[in-house]
Amino acid sequence: MSITTPGGFVASGLACGIKASGALDLALVATDDGVAVPTAATFTTNLAAAPPVQVSRQHIAATGGRATAVVVSSGNANAATGARGRADAEAMCGLVGTALGVPAEEILVCSTGLIGIPLPMEPIRAGIPLLVAARSGTDDHAVDAATGILTTDSGRKEELVTHPTFAVAGMAKGAGMLAPNMATMLAFLTTDAAIEAGPLADLLRIAVRDSFNSMTVDGCTSTNDTVVLMASGRAGTADPNVVVDAVTEVCAGLAGQMAADAEGASKIAHIRVTGARSDGQAHQGARKVADSLLVKCSLNGEDAYWGRVASDLGSAGIDFDMDRLSIAYGGVTVCREGIAAEHDEAAVAAHLAGTMIDIHCELGLADGTGVVMGVDLGYGYIDENRTTS
Amino acid sequence: MSITTPGGFVASGLACGIKASGALDLALVATDDGVAVPTAATFTTNLAAAPPVQVSRQHIAATGGRATAVVVSSGNANAATGARGRADAEAMCGLVGTALGVPAEEILVCSTGLIGIPLPMEPIRAGIPLLVAARSGTDDHAVDAATGILTTDSGRKEELVTHPTFAVAGMAKGAGMLAPNMATMLAFLTTDAAIEAGPLADLLRIAVRDSFNSMTVDGCTSTNDTVVLMASGRAGTADPNVVVDAVTEVCAGLAGQMAADAEGASKIAHIRVTGARSDGQAHQGARKVADSLLVKCSLNGEDAYWGRVASDLGSAGIDFDMDRLSIAYGGVTVCREGIAAEHDEAAVAAHLAGTMIDIHCELGLADGTGVVMGVDLGYGYIDENRTTS
Repeated sequence: MSITTPGGFVASGLACGIKASGALDLALVATDDGVAVPTAATFTTNLAAAPPVQVSRQHIAATGGRATAVVVSSGNANAATGARGRADAEAMCGLVGTALGVPAEEILVCSTGLIGIPLPMEPIRAGIPLLVAARSGTDDHAVDAATGILTTDSGRKEELVTHPTFAVAGMAKGAGMLAPNMATMLAFLTTDAAIEAGPLADLLRIAVRDSFNSMTVDGCTSTNDTVVLMASGRAGTADPNVVVDAVTEVCAGLAGQMAADAEGASKIAHIRVTGARSDGQAHQGARKVADSLLVKCSLNGEDAYWGRVASDLGSAGIDFDMDRLSIAYGGVTVCREGIAAEHDEAAVAAHLAGTMIDIHCELGLADGTGVVMGVDLGYGYIDENRTTS
Repeated sequence: MSITTPGGFVASGLACGIKASGALDLALVATDDGVAVPTAATFTTNLAAAPPVQVSRQHIAATGGRATAVVVSSGNANAATGARGRADAEAMCGLVGTALGVPAEEILVCSTGLIGIPLPMEPIRAGIPLLVAARSGTDDHAVDAATGILTTDSGRKEELVTHPTFAVAGMAKGAGMLAPNMATMLAFLTTDAAIEAGPLADLLRIAVRDSFNSMTVDGCTSTNDTVVLMASGRAGTADPNVVVDAVTEVCAGLAGQMAADAEGASKIAHIRVTGARSDGQAHQGARKVADSLLVKCSLNGEDAYWGRVASDLGSAGIDFDMDRLSIAYGGVTVCREGIAAEHDEAAVAAHLAGTMIDIHCELGLADGTGVVMGVDLGYGYIDENRTTS
């Protein structure tokens, strides 16, 4: 599998010297013929959005949703860098555009790494022409690209979904949500299905909502989070309903790889809320539980302290009636109608001893449902995030 | 200092057997003549509010803000206990009312401890008549009361502010926010100033906003949080503006004692936000920073990673312009106009090595200000909250 499996794309990655370790720190995904294609992107909602996010937003608006390439640097987030940071992000697009012979605004740019330090532009200026020259459709080069976007990730994150008529591929770095000093969650997707920019943006929004936006490690919204989807059209038209499922599947796979790679986390919990007043309320409740320090600690301790789950739902800002609440761990109901339920404690303990935890909260109000994937809180998270050095 | 220093109050505390340790677990504060006085109370906003909160809310509404006594049990929160829990909370009020010869609705009730386990009513039924009989205005009995409300607190929390014409006293237990498995923050205040129920409720709301509601340990809102203020009137009328300052001072003192007692915390941080669009926005931004896992970890690591502070402000849901942001640690500006500022790193390191940390965020938008007191996140918090046993 690789980001260049869908027809019409090339990729490359190399080490230009941003990372002191000498690891790969530049990556490119581009169309193989240098022609812009329909492209959708979702960006962080953080008002402290980093300069590359600001520049990419402007570019995708200016082109009406078309791009020829996306360039990524890792090791430095180019965030909290002000006017200089915006000029640097523009310069990266300009360098790629020049090398490809297209306008800078057809290029999107992402950076990931430490916040508050200007980009080292000298190695980047030297590296980008080599990066563009190295682009190809081989798996080797796609591996370089998927590697060049990583920071503290333990390894590459790639997904591929193939249909009889088209394919969707993705690569991501998720150290952003996992070792969040590194600031960012980035994902890049390609498809050879033919979809225009408008519908492409709609389907990416749905896919992101049901995948990346349904997971949480620490409730922090990064300054650089970006998801880009490019559609080459080489495979011809496809049913948008089928494509949205494939894109969601790729995104969910990448999100799962991120959660599994969360440093300091020993458990992944799926918090399912049903019976809420609406899907939105269910999602909000599930997120509140998934982000609760007390619930996260109890997951780490393998303790089924459902009283804290109830308390978090009660303070989630959603409609709630304690007397209608049921809570189950791994399918074993521990709370019914808001009070403790007799249950098989050994079965709950066995479930909590595993690494994949399921907590189901039935609110008993209406039909709204939502699922959020979270992780436990242990010493490792603190170790990872105490200092930036 | 004691809760009975303001004229017109008596108190008592004893061990009835809720706590297996044999520690004091019942407490009473009452008027010395058995006559109801103007009383204000603020309760948790959690929709999973525990039965004692539900019962106390009903009582204070029914009396129009008058009470003769408040009774407290510790070791069990009587939360997530449904109809039985409500009957038990009513029974506690009834027992105190009977012993004092007043209606049950003139009694308020609080409980603190583990969630989800019915109250052991047998020892409570036996203990309450003894508790009421033991009431007195001596400091010894006030100490028993201030001890009887504690759970995992390391010691009693008491404050007293005296003015030429009146006094305000308070006692609290803050293990709720500190070792939150114990669920609750409770505070009880008395004054001998003469204030009617309406103005008393107004001034308590202000005092709580500027004290307890301006501190956070983990962002969790408990099922049982309650603050009660009784005004005997024995000292005659007083200027409400002077009384509100005194009540706020007592509440802030108790809140500070809670933060200092936070198990697992090694630092107290005051997050000050100025230049916000409004005081409300400033408070919201400060709270977001104070509750940020990444900021809390960096405090633990004594790391001035201001980029995360900026990122949290940018995702706080308030008006924000990165290019106008300044951030200072201990008065040393580390970020100016949204980018890194040259600064004395040794001075910042020395400040972060202390236990009281000041982080000042100037948003540069308008005149709104707010301060929230928070703590760092270290191993101790996890150790305290992994399991309930």
